[in-house]
Amino acid sequence: MDQENIMNHGDDVHDIENEGLWDGKEIKRYLSEVSDKNITYKEPFLVKRTNTTSQIAIVGANVCPIESLDYEIVENELFKQDWRSRKKVQIFQYVLLKWAFALLIGLGTGIVGFFNNIAVENIAGFKLLLTSGLMSEHKYYKAFTAYAGCNVVLAAAAAVLCAFIAPAAAGSGIPEVKAYLNGVDAYSMLAPSTLFVKIFGSILGVSAGFVVGKEGPMVHTGACIANLLGQGGSRKYHLTWTWLRYFKNDRDRRDMITCGAAAGVAAAFRAPVGGVLFALEEAASWWRSALLWRTFFTTAVVAIVLRAFIQYCSTGKCGLFGQGGLIMYDVSSATSTYSGPDILAVIFLGIIGGILGSIYNYFVDKVLRTYSIINERGAVSKILLVIAISLLTSCCSFGLPWLAKCISCPTDLTVSCPTVGESGNYKGFQCPTGYYNDLASLFLNTNDDAIRNLFSTSTKNEFHISSLFIFFGAIYCLGIITYGIAIPAGLFIPVILAGASYGRLVGRLFESISTLDMGLYALLGAASFLGGTMRMTVSLCVILLELTNDLLLLPLVMLVLLISKTVADNFNKGVYDQILKIKGLPYLDAHAEPYMKHLVARDVVSGPLITFSGVEKVGNILHALKTTGHNGFPVIDEPPFSDAPELCGVVLRSHLLVLLKGKNFSKDRVVTGADVFQRFAAFDFSKAGSGKGIKLEDLDIEEEEMEMYVDLHPITNASPYTVVETMSLAKAAILFRQLGLRHMCVVPKSQGRPPIVGILTRHDFMREHILGLNPQYNE
Amino acid sequence: MDQENIMNHGDDVHDIENEGLWDGKEIKRYLSEVSDKNITYKEPFLVKRTNTTSQIAIVGANVCPIESLDYEIVENELFKQDWRSRKKVQIFQYVLLKWAFALLIGLGTGIVGFFNNIAVENIAGFKLLLTSGLMSEHKYYKAFTAYAGCNVVLAAAAAVLCAFIAPAAAGSGIPEVKAYLNGVDAYSMLAPSTLFVKIFGSILGVSAGFVVGKEGPMVHTGACIANLLGQGGSRKYHLTWTWLRYFKNDRDRRDMITCGAAAGVAAAFRAPVGGVLFALEEAASWWRSALLWRTFFTTAVVAIVLRAFIQYCSTGKCGLFGQGGLIMYDVSSATSTYSGPDILAVIFLGIIGGILGSIYNYFVDKVLRTYSIINERGAVSKILLVIAISLLTSCCSFGLPWLAKCISCPTDLTVSCPTVGESGNYKGFQCPTGYYNDLASLFLNTNDDAIRNLFSTSTKNEFHISSLFIFFGAIYCLGIITYGIAIPAGLFIPVILAGASYGRLVGRLFESISTLDMGLYALLGAASFLGGTMRMTVSLCVILLELTNDLLLLPLVMLVLLISKTVADNFNKGVYDQILKIKGLPYLDAHAEPYMKHLVARDVVSGPLITFSGVEKVGNILHALKTTGHNGFPVIDEPPFSDAPELCGVVLRSHLLVLLKGKNFSKDRVVTGADVFQRFAAFDFSKAGSGKGIKLEDLDIEEEEMEMYVDLHPITNASPYTVVETMSLAKAAILFRQLGLRHMCVVPKSQGRPPIVGILTRHDFMREHILGLNPQYNE
Repeated sequence: MDQENIMNHGDDVHDIENEGLWDGKEIKRYLSEVSDKNITYKEPFLVKRTNTTSQIAIVGANVCPIESLDYEIVENELFKQDWRSRKKVQIFQYVLLKWAFALLIGLGTGIVGFFNNIAVENIAGFKLLLTSGLMSEHKYYKAFTAYAGCNVVLAAAAAVLCAFIAPAAAGSGIPEVKAYLNGVDAYSMLAPSTLFVKIFGSILGVSAGFVVGKEGPMVHTGACIANLLGQGGSRKYHLTWTWLRYFKNDRDRRDMITCGAAAGVAAAFRAPVGGVLFALEEAASWWRSALLWRTFFTTAVVAIVLRAFIQYCSTGKCGLFGQGGLIMYDVSSATSTYSGPDILAVIFLGIIGGILGSIYNYFVDKVLRTYSIINERGAVSKILLVIAISLLTSCCSFGLPWLAKCISCPTDLTVSCPTVGESGNYKGFQCPTGYYNDLASLFLNTNDDAIRNLFSTSTKNEFHISSLFIFFGAIYCLGIITYGIAIPAGLFIPVILAGASYGRLVGRLFESISTLDMGLYALLGAASFLGGTMRMTVSLCVILLELTNDLLLLPLVMLVLLISKTVADNFNKGVYDQILKIKGLPYLDAHAEPYMKHLVARDVVSGPLITFSGVEKVGNILHALKTTGHNGFPVIDEPPFSDAPELCGVVLRSHLLVLLKGKNFSKDRVVTGADVFQRFAAFDFSKAGSGKGIKLEDLDIEEEEMEMYVDLHPITNASPYTVVETMSLAKAAILFRQLGLRHMCVVPKSQGRPPIVGILTRHDFMREHILGLNPQYNE
Repeated sequence: MDQENIMNHGDDVHDIENEGLWDGKEIKRYLSEVSDKNITYKEPFLVKRTNTTSQIAIVGANVCPIESLDYEIVENELFKQDWRSRKKVQIFQYVLLKWAFALLIGLGTGIVGFFNNIAVENIAGFKLLLTSGLMSEHKYYKAFTAYAGCNVVLAAAAAVLCAFIAPAAAGSGIPEVKAYLNGVDAYSMLAPSTLFVKIFGSILGVSAGFVVGKEGPMVHTGACIANLLGQGGSRKYHLTWTWLRYFKNDRDRRDMITCGAAAGVAAAFRAPVGGVLFALEEAASWWRSALLWRTFFTTAVVAIVLRAFIQYCSTGKCGLFGQGGLIMYDVSSATSTYSGPDILAVIFLGIIGGILGSIYNYFVDKVLRTYSIINERGAVSKILLVIAISLLTSCCSFGLPWLAKCISCPTDLTVSCPTVGESGNYKGFQCPTGYYNDLASLFLNTNDDAIRNLFSTSTKNEFHISSLFIFFGAIYCLGIITYGIAIPAGLFIPVILAGASYGRLVGRLFESISTLDMGLYALLGAASFLGGTMRMTVSLCVILLELTNDLLLLPLVMLVLLISKTVADNFNKGVYDQILKIKGLPYLDAHAEPYMKHLVARDVVSGPLITFSGVEKVGNILHALKTTGHNGFPVIDEPPFSDAPELCGVVLRSHLLVLLKGKNFSKDRVVTGADVFQRFAAFDFSKAGSGKGIKLEDLDIEEEEMEMYVDLHPITNASPYTVVETMSLAKAAILFRQLGLRHMCVVPKSQGRPPIVGILTRHDFMREHILGLNPQYNE
């Protein structure tokens, strides 16, 4: 490209790749541009408030794309010699290290998971013992004050951590991990500070008695641990090992984070196979069979770590942590034969679960949008919102049990009733000795214990129908209004709680015709509601089976999941997909949309293109880097380097920065070729850890150097994936998504034109962009 | 393309696409051509004998590729209007039908699976009762004659079925299903005759006392049932429904066959989740999340069907079929705590399993190559081989128990000892009353019962060490020499049997320091040997857990699988991959080979190209179809239809045949465009059932029509996937494999040349082809 050309292009700041600058300003301009054209689409929440620092906006605002899975060519083209010269030992090291990292991820996540459980059991246990102690002395107001006070303090602590240190740690974390594995790296999403807040915020939040779980946060924690290991050490603290450089590419990092997510599920539910399946079904966008294998190893390590800790704690060395810490319910004593009416009840449960699940998703969506308006007003608003919800939760938990009548203890018990001095099945609350309050048994317990109570078998009449109904209503509503406040909050536990309670309710309805145990109904209810909200099937099924340790339930659980998912899919999307959309993360679906079939690649190429010549003037490069946010630039060979202009390949911004930093310039426009590798080691070009790459400001180019030339050929990816401009957009989208690309070149169909029409990026496949350019396909 | 051109090209019979003609002659020429160049590669077995009708050769010789997953463009380009005009009802029908088919596959496979079990239990049970009856009367020779006679008759019947009706039904079937799902449709692999022989041959073979399983055949059976449903009815029998035409494309068929394979595993092991994972980990090459969901539904149906049948049979209505029919072992009564020494024993087991597994694979490979020489001599040789192996098996089963000493029956039994009049744990054989022969308990039982005996818990001293050793040695060797004979033969059961017996052996070795139960050791031994031969992890783990119904074993099973797979992977490939290779099926691996990184797409393009003009002379097309076996032809638009020659797209042979059959010709060279759809319905172009498409001989073109023109534009896929000739071959291979392509166009990099350089097909990515053209990368 000659100078004149680049001047023309350089002045234009329109982006080929908005993904490179997927920040508030960019999104705002892009979306308002789209809405100018009067398109009716459900606009992401972000469009209204993009210049703020709200939690949601921050997540949406700092999206920078991770490198494409296409990275292999860098290795191929750039390091061909290098790779050949690598010793076998190094390759062995590389493979061994992958396994070592999987081991470390497993160990780390297992330990954190167990620590989380011990902490929650002890903090919440202490709080509940204090309350029940005061209750048994009939000091009701004092008990409420103590209970609500503890809750508010814990909640406020969690909110402070979240608001001031890592706003990205709020919420479940599963949508963010899902987005990362799809290729969207939201800034600070997996940073060490996020990890810290996620761990402690989750402990405080769960202990504070919120209707939240620790499962989503555990998945996020696992991913953070994996990311930390994948950073390749820290230059700041001089922790750089030679061998860590092997992992400086996106594929290995992505693999590790997949392992981390699986480990998180395995640690949360003690479900190693479920963890693998979760990573496969819900989290990952690309999957390789080698990954299955490594993920499986990671979750096995988690299972072994947890088992070792539990054996250690079974001797009573872990304070209030009993068997209860890790959820593990045993319904296997229940009967496992079933007949026609049972199946009917199960189908009914599935339908109910689907309907309730889609309603739940609808309201979670609405509440999230409302809360983000509050949250964006600043840290104080966030904390006040958390305290308000905490007080409301305390009032419900403490107030609603007064509605329940005292029930006389059953006589054939092996445990004490009412339970004194420990968390248990039968809470005395206000009742006299020999009686228990069934609602208090559910409300004034940790969530895990409440689920265990609901899942308990052979306790048909433990809970009154009215109590179950009240509990279900309260948990359903509290679950909806709790998600979205500034604490780490999982969705699994609220959903399981609500599902189990209506499961038992349905069980009571079908009492006369069905022989299934109430504990089993609770399990099936939980399955139906999970299916209705999360819309997973196989992984949920396996997680539930691993939780309950009874494979004979399989057909029933499968049936209920299938029905509830099918019903709910008619109304809206899964809850994680909804959250992804609200956060404005540019998620690429695996399949092409129908309207894409009527378009070709050319139809979505937008804006003028900035290209470089094979041997380019330094000043031109610097100007292009400064004035655009593009991450990839096509390189075009022109005479005298080729007979006619032809596409040489694509250079990445990060590689250009390294090259410029090295100052390997020449006065004349000549091909210097592989000389560049006398100055650089191949690894200098490999991807840096987050925030550790060379920045534009780090360059120190003198005035006379601006007029010198630099040969781009050595760092050009000479094999970019290309499509012809008349390629069906649906097919181009599938190519882009399946191969995990970041840049895709569109080349002209006919000859005698410039050798490249444009570059397609993730941005160009987004629904809003396409329909903005082609409004006729709006439906 | 003008006439002169086509004459030049037409005379040359070198194929662009050998896949279209992947028959014996083609392979022979291609391979000999490669070996002429003095390349040392491990040549597939086929090269030596390609003009024969041996079972293996037939499989290898009739490979025709199934249509690419790329099919969607056909819908897109060809049926754009059509799709738009389809009513919502039709789409709903389509979706509903997919589920209905999944249901049917599940039902069908479940019923066949159960029928198989009942038949085997009754036939084998009758045979064993007869033998033990004669034994208890001390008529030893008569007993042997009866036993061996029954075996030989059953075996011969299976061999006759296999040799005369469907040679493709021999063997496991899993490699073939794997190849189909990779895109290789070996002719008659999934035909109704194969299904018939697979079902009955498997029953006869297993009943004949061979060391074979019914698991592989069940997978194949499931796939056959799915394929049958996907054929879209039969024109021959006037069974054509309008709605069945929706499934006339490869993606839907492939999806259904994936479901079928999963259903097969689910039916064989009663392991629905394991079935899904097996389909995912081992069988499928492409996977969509929608498929997970549908596969899961299919296996759930299988589980429910099996459960219903078992409940029905539990009342004793199924003859000799007891609890034993479907393998389901309960080791859950065994202790589930373990300590350091136990882990050590497990690691030891894993290593042993890996080594034994790779040795097993090595010998299976050798034996298969030897047997195929025998098998190709004709049906009689095949049958004689089966009879010989049957006699050998009978001698071992009946002879070896004489080496065991009689053991006095344990006193604390709930079952009778020795068992009389039913299949059971303690076989009397030659022993006096009150004593049993432990080797006979293993040998003279069905394989399922033998496994159950080995897995039984709290029976530490039931088997002598020497007996276990003899049994292990015999089964290991018999397993190796049995696979490859002309009967349907699964590999799972022999491997589990051998593994369980050395597992118990190792258990006895570690007796002094380990507290694990012997039944558990048997399970872990089976796991280690399975891992060492099949090299699956997650699916095996889940299958074993579903078999034994105890999730607490998970960490140990995971560990043993990981170790044995890792150890064995150092020596050779998994057994199914080896069989695929021996059968000469062109399987595409998911990853690119290292040498591909040094090549570009142009390097593997071979032979002159046959192209058509946008409006082509009928004679030229006919000539090209007659003289080549290509399945896809590039269409090039030339002046006056475009300014310069440009690539219009690719036409498929099958579509050309339909077009020619329709005789929509014109005298002049003009674009007739979409007029063609007044003559054709869109569905006329959709894929026909196997063997139902139009053949070249069906065409009846008059002499004067040969000089007329036909417009190819309406049937041209105008969006073929293309790569530039300088694209790294590794990246081109990944593109080809990931998107499941059948044809990939290579376009020139520089301008002013013909618009297409060549077409790459599956053939061009085969190791032998690439290294033949580029011998310098041979290692």
